[in-house]
Amino acid sequence: MKYIESAKNPRVKQWKKLLTKKERDKTGRYLIEGFHLVEEALKEASLVQAVILSEDAEVPVQFKLEGIEVIYAANDVLKAISDTETPQGITAVCEQREVTLEDIDPQKLLLIDAVQDPGNIGTMIRTADAAGIDAVILGEGCADPYNPKVIRSTQGSIFHLPVIKSDLSDIIDSLQNRGIPVYGTALENAVSFEKVEKVQSFALLVGNEGQGVAKQLLSKTTQNLYIPIYGKSESLNVGIAAGILLYHLRK
Amino acid sequence: MKYIESAKNPRVKQWKKLLTKKERDKTGRYLIEGFHLVEEALKEASLVQAVILSEDAEVPVQFKLEGIEVIYAANDVLKAISDTETPQGITAVCEQREVTLEDIDPQKLLLIDAVQDPGNIGTMIRTADAAGIDAVILGEGCADPYNPKVIRSTQGSIFHLPVIKSDLSDIIDSLQNRGIPVYGTALENAVSFEKVEKVQSFALLVGNEGQGVAKQLLSKTTQNLYIPIYGKSESLNVGIAAGILLYHLRK
Repeated sequence: MKYIESAKNPRVKQWKKLLTKKERDKTGRYLIEGFHLVEEALKEASLVQAVILSEDAEVPVQFKLEGIEVIYAANDVLKAISDTETPQGITAVCEQREVTLEDIDPQKLLLIDAVQDPGNIGTMIRTADAAGIDAVILGEGCADPYNPKVIRSTQGSIFHLPVIKSDLSDIIDSLQNRGIPVYGTALENAVSFEKVEKVQSFALLVGNEGQGVAKQLLSKTTQNLYIPIYGKSESLNVGIAAGILLYHLRK
Repeated sequence: MKYIESAKNPRVKQWKKLLTKKERDKTGRYLIEGFHLVEEALKEASLVQAVILSEDAEVPVQFKLEGIEVIYAANDVLKAISDTETPQGITAVCEQREVTLEDIDPQKLLLIDAVQDPGNIGTMIRTADAAGIDAVILGEGCADPYNPKVIRSTQGSIFHLPVIKSDLSDIIDSLQNRGIPVYGTALENAVSFEKVEKVQSFALLVGNEGQGVAKQLLSKTTQNLYIPIYGKSESLNVGIAAGILLYHLRK
């Protein structure tokens, strides 16, 4: 049994760096924490590289650990590599996946422009998964999908659904060339979402919490939609808007 | 011009206590922070009792401050009465409103059972406002609606929409006696929400993040609904589910 006692161990120092976006980008790895997330990640082949467990933790029987490095560690180690105040006794090192749109030929997509709040990004990935969306595309200015807060908010959907960082302008062109309508969200030059029929293939484009979708992208969409506001609130949370629209559009 | 220099001033100590639920319940008051929230609160008559401003803050011209006590204060004072790390230079003391269902005769309601996360409660109040819901009813076990995090997430909707703490079992009886259908949310003994026609009057009942709506309440509803999950996620965030259902049900 491998055991690491000190937070000063070189491997621990390497893992700890994965809490920064810079190191995640450099290595193509990221950390996940907690029994539920690790269980979800283990369901996907060759995603988890190593599982680090508190010395007093028990491995749940349903965990599929064949071929995966398992390391026990002192609580100080788990604390050092956690971004939460109360570490849950289990962390795993995962591999980012390189997926391109060509690999998956998606029929239903969610495109996200410059949404900065990690909770919003994570909740939208979870909602897209629930709604049967094939891929989520993150444009410039979005929170890093491998940020621990994003991963927690996805509740594991990030392991099941391709999440691709890309240039949204190029993606919109490519989808329209393939005959897939792209629906933007906007307050001006837009139609009420209820006027749009359900469709087999579509991309929904949502945007920044304060600014909405960039104008330059809105000008390229097939059609822009709005959700009517019947009361006094000025707008909906972007995650809520995405949920309403994805479930409305999908057939 | 009133000016308070020290965080040890007795009024400051009183305000600071309003960051606790106990004191809010005792006094019927609560604090709000930030220019946007204060502006929204000032639109409602006799809601704001006092506005506390940083000595270097400027009062926006659109603020309606007639009849409202305005106090300038040192930054230490604003910091003492803030729940955030970087206070925004303006805080107001507000009055909780005593509203009963009889006062408002609502036709569209959102009932919330034991939702604990302040962000979820706040986002649902904001979404209910957007969807033209007449009142939000919070049952036992919900986060306090006057918690600063709830208020921030409502983006001001808490000032515009009646939010009532009550016994949900009694409310369901009373609504059904008035002929208003109550739709619960559940995974078992439920129909897909898309099977339900839009209606003029309804109450939607959503529940706790982990447990869902209490069984005892689900057994009393007119009908229970579920949102189909087409992907691999196990569930939707409760706020997202509420958004999808409120916009689907409302006519």
